[in-house]
Amino acid sequence: MTTATANTPATHNALTTLFAAVQDAALLHSTANLLGWDQETMMPDGGAELRGRQLSQLARLAHEAFTAPKIGDLIAAAQEAVAGMPTDCADAVNVREIRRDYDKAVKLPASLVAEMALTASQAQHAWVVARRDSDFKKFQPWLEKIVKLNLQKAQCLGWPKGGEAWDALADYFEPALTAVEVTKVFEPLRARLQKLLDRIRGASKQPSNAFNEFALPVDSQEKFVRYMAKRIGFDFNCGRLDRSAHPFCGGSHCRDVRMTTRYSPTCVFDALGSTMHEAGHGMYEQGLDFAQAGLPMGSAAGLSVHESQSRMWENQVGRSMHFWKWARPQLSAFFGDACDHFTLVHLYQAANVVEPGFIRVESDEATYNMHVMIRFQLERDMLNGNVAIKDLPGVWNKMYKEYLGVTVPDDRRGCLQDVHWSMGMIGYFPTYTLGTLLAAQLFEKARKDVPGLEEGFNRGEFAPLLSWLRKNVHSEGRRYRLDELCRKVTGAPLSADPMMRHLEAKLLPLYGLE
Amino acid sequence: MTTATANTPATHNALTTLFAAVQDAALLHSTANLLGWDQETMMPDGGAELRGRQLSQLARLAHEAFTAPKIGDLIAAAQEAVAGMPTDCADAVNVREIRRDYDKAVKLPASLVAEMALTASQAQHAWVVARRDSDFKKFQPWLEKIVKLNLQKAQCLGWPKGGEAWDALADYFEPALTAVEVTKVFEPLRARLQKLLDRIRGASKQPSNAFNEFALPVDSQEKFVRYMAKRIGFDFNCGRLDRSAHPFCGGSHCRDVRMTTRYSPTCVFDALGSTMHEAGHGMYEQGLDFAQAGLPMGSAAGLSVHESQSRMWENQVGRSMHFWKWARPQLSAFFGDACDHFTLVHLYQAANVVEPGFIRVESDEATYNMHVMIRFQLERDMLNGNVAIKDLPGVWNKMYKEYLGVTVPDDRRGCLQDVHWSMGMIGYFPTYTLGTLLAAQLFEKARKDVPGLEEGFNRGEFAPLLSWLRKNVHSEGRRYRLDELCRKVTGAPLSADPMMRHLEAKLLPLYGLE
Repeated sequence: MTTATANTPATHNALTTLFAAVQDAALLHSTANLLGWDQETMMPDGGAELRGRQLSQLARLAHEAFTAPKIGDLIAAAQEAVAGMPTDCADAVNVREIRRDYDKAVKLPASLVAEMALTASQAQHAWVVARRDSDFKKFQPWLEKIVKLNLQKAQCLGWPKGGEAWDALADYFEPALTAVEVTKVFEPLRARLQKLLDRIRGASKQPSNAFNEFALPVDSQEKFVRYMAKRIGFDFNCGRLDRSAHPFCGGSHCRDVRMTTRYSPTCVFDALGSTMHEAGHGMYEQGLDFAQAGLPMGSAAGLSVHESQSRMWENQVGRSMHFWKWARPQLSAFFGDACDHFTLVHLYQAANVVEPGFIRVESDEATYNMHVMIRFQLERDMLNGNVAIKDLPGVWNKMYKEYLGVTVPDDRRGCLQDVHWSMGMIGYFPTYTLGTLLAAQLFEKARKDVPGLEEGFNRGEFAPLLSWLRKNVHSEGRRYRLDELCRKVTGAPLSADPMMRHLEAKLLPLYGLE
Repeated sequence: MTTATANTPATHNALTTLFAAVQDAALLHSTANLLGWDQETMMPDGGAELRGRQLSQLARLAHEAFTAPKIGDLIAAAQEAVAGMPTDCADAVNVREIRRDYDKAVKLPASLVAEMALTASQAQHAWVVARRDSDFKKFQPWLEKIVKLNLQKAQCLGWPKGGEAWDALADYFEPALTAVEVTKVFEPLRARLQKLLDRIRGASKQPSNAFNEFALPVDSQEKFVRYMAKRIGFDFNCGRLDRSAHPFCGGSHCRDVRMTTRYSPTCVFDALGSTMHEAGHGMYEQGLDFAQAGLPMGSAAGLSVHESQSRMWENQVGRSMHFWKWARPQLSAFFGDACDHFTLVHLYQAANVVEPGFIRVESDEATYNMHVMIRFQLERDMLNGNVAIKDLPGVWNKMYKEYLGVTVPDDRRGCLQDVHWSMGMIGYFPTYTLGTLLAAQLFEKARKDVPGLEEGFNRGEFAPLLSWLRKNVHSEGRRYRLDELCRKVTGAPLSADPMMRHLEAKLLPLYGLE
């Protein structure tokens, strides 16, 4: 093998040919993602059957295009071309990651890829109905099929020695993540959180929850959260905000980002929290390099990093006293004088009250990760056969009692609450917690790097934080893995300490526990 | 060549293999159509660039799939298989029409198909901006490119002796339609309409136009027209109504029909008329056979028949006294007592007032076809080089003076008003007039076939008309050509007489000219 010199015409040609072919395959994914968004937000019921077939066709075509033998040849040529380049330059990263994706993709038959896409589309539709009717039975056969297909997929992909099927699947959401590693993070974290929750439970001082039970017109809520998304930096020229059964951020590519939320007539925080969360995802996407769209350097690093962005805007920003100093006076423009009797302290307390509940996306920061741990355990158990799908509601409810001390009232607020499994995604959930840890760690560093960062929130100035994230995270694409990125930006490996510091600094005073 | 007997396993196999392949290619079109709808209704500006590439890719893939040599072989086998069947049975019609489509498609290089789709997407975006700014210069280079590409397309396809490039393009919208035939219909029609317009212009009695200049809240208008669409039979479980710069009916397939309208704060008839028009298209699509989706028997016969449906619901139904007897009392549910001072006669008069104007989609029934004739003439002139694109606004405005006696105030209300050319569609417009003639002719027959048809409108009963159309038109797919269908259903060739009867019966009394 000869080592090509960078920037010769032959090098240039090998790379542009490969990248164009990969972008062509990715363009089909961008179309599929738009159809996926449409299915959740706009599509009438009648569209469901053919939508599944459309998505299945696109998945098959994209898979066939990306796994064509020609692509293998192009990758080999491109690897020679980048051999003399710095390993973290854009071209080299693109080739490295394309090789990684390709080696995984060729292990999967196109028929399985197509069947998973079809099943996911149909199962999602079944999930919406089952959730609406709070009837797990209507979703059970779909979940059984999804677990079966995921097991097939894991078998095709294989996993490292000592690992399990879950690892093969999680690798799609967080490269090289394993159940063993997740457990190493989760077990001590659960103990620390439990200790904090026990202290809070025993506290004599209680923050006011009144604003979380205060009805405001949904139309006005929508205008309000749209304004907030815009003010923190979501670019509506390159994105939308709509409604869906479960909030998500999808869309077609970095200049066409589609996020959703949902509205509770009696709690504007539901919509505000989820909008700031999804806007965090959306701003990450919008910060990717459009010129690299469809290539690894124009893609998000992984879902943990993605969640670090959403969780930071939701929590470190949206639940802070600094934010509410600015946000409170904004309320009158949308709700008139309806909120005037809530003081700044009332709002801040309501944003941070700790209350173990059933719904992950509406949960407070102290209990949030417990929801994630339950799902992680259940994913493993379903894959390993330790929990039969038909028994899921019962096991789910038992774990909620054990982890959070709450009695789940029905399946809608139990194991049917999250959309992920219906979309065929198993191995996703732990990234929520890893991202939550990273959010706190990144935010500590941003605070050090940018003097007056949080004081700026008092005045509605969020651009300094967004710029810092653009520079340190968004523009890096898939250059670094989660832990690499964390070390490079913060100088330390990923740790739960910053999040625990963040929680304790906020919650202990709130509950008079200092 | 042997003649296969119908329903042998070999016959069955030849047909199912062909039909599955054709449906697979059509599925890509159904995806592209969804993206086209999204572009006009939902997509943020930032999405434009990649949307063009997405649509271009889908057009190329669909074209390549449909023109693969394998398809040619399958068609040949299928033709043998149907040779012993009745020529108008579903299988035979499917094979006949697939052969027709295939023989045309293979004449076009995939590169041209892809370039046209890319150009159409980008040009549509440029058109929206040019129309908003009323600046033809911003659209001119795109229209020049579109005319050039359409000429290339026409050259690839060829046209019958004595014909012209326009004929090759019109064939996509109305099979076998030629400019010479259109002229044979349009010339005498123009004279008859001109005579009617002259009489109306000289009339002493004038109907009230007041309801056309009466402001009503747009939110309420939207609820009102949505209700009306539902009541006349548009199925919202298999479709949507949204807003766009130019009303249209698109969507993905017969169970996912997406129609749009636009709202004028000062005239609810704009939204109502265009909604009933698009709902007419939408109900035709919804009446197609879902089992035949993607096949000729599950497709509309052609655009003239399509327009007959939209124009009938807009005019024969929506502008009738019978309709308003029912519709007037409905107004209060949406607008309170705001409309109470308009009598039934006021509303009927406003729905039918004749007023030569600039905008086709807002025009009355007597002047409507003049708008179409102008566009038809200009399409031919642009293709034949008789009008340079840069001169289009001037020539457009001159013709409006000549045909309708009006002075076009700006390009937005002049040659930039219609979306069609920006979408790459040349040869489409005459189907509006042919459809308008067919609407009147079909409606005369429906009135004879269904006793009490119009009296039912008084009570909001529209199902009998829809059922008649389902049976006689919708369920036929592409079994018959325009003229065949017209003869089969009405017993006579397509004629302008029914429309002139319809207009005179309505307008002469309205203007005191009996």
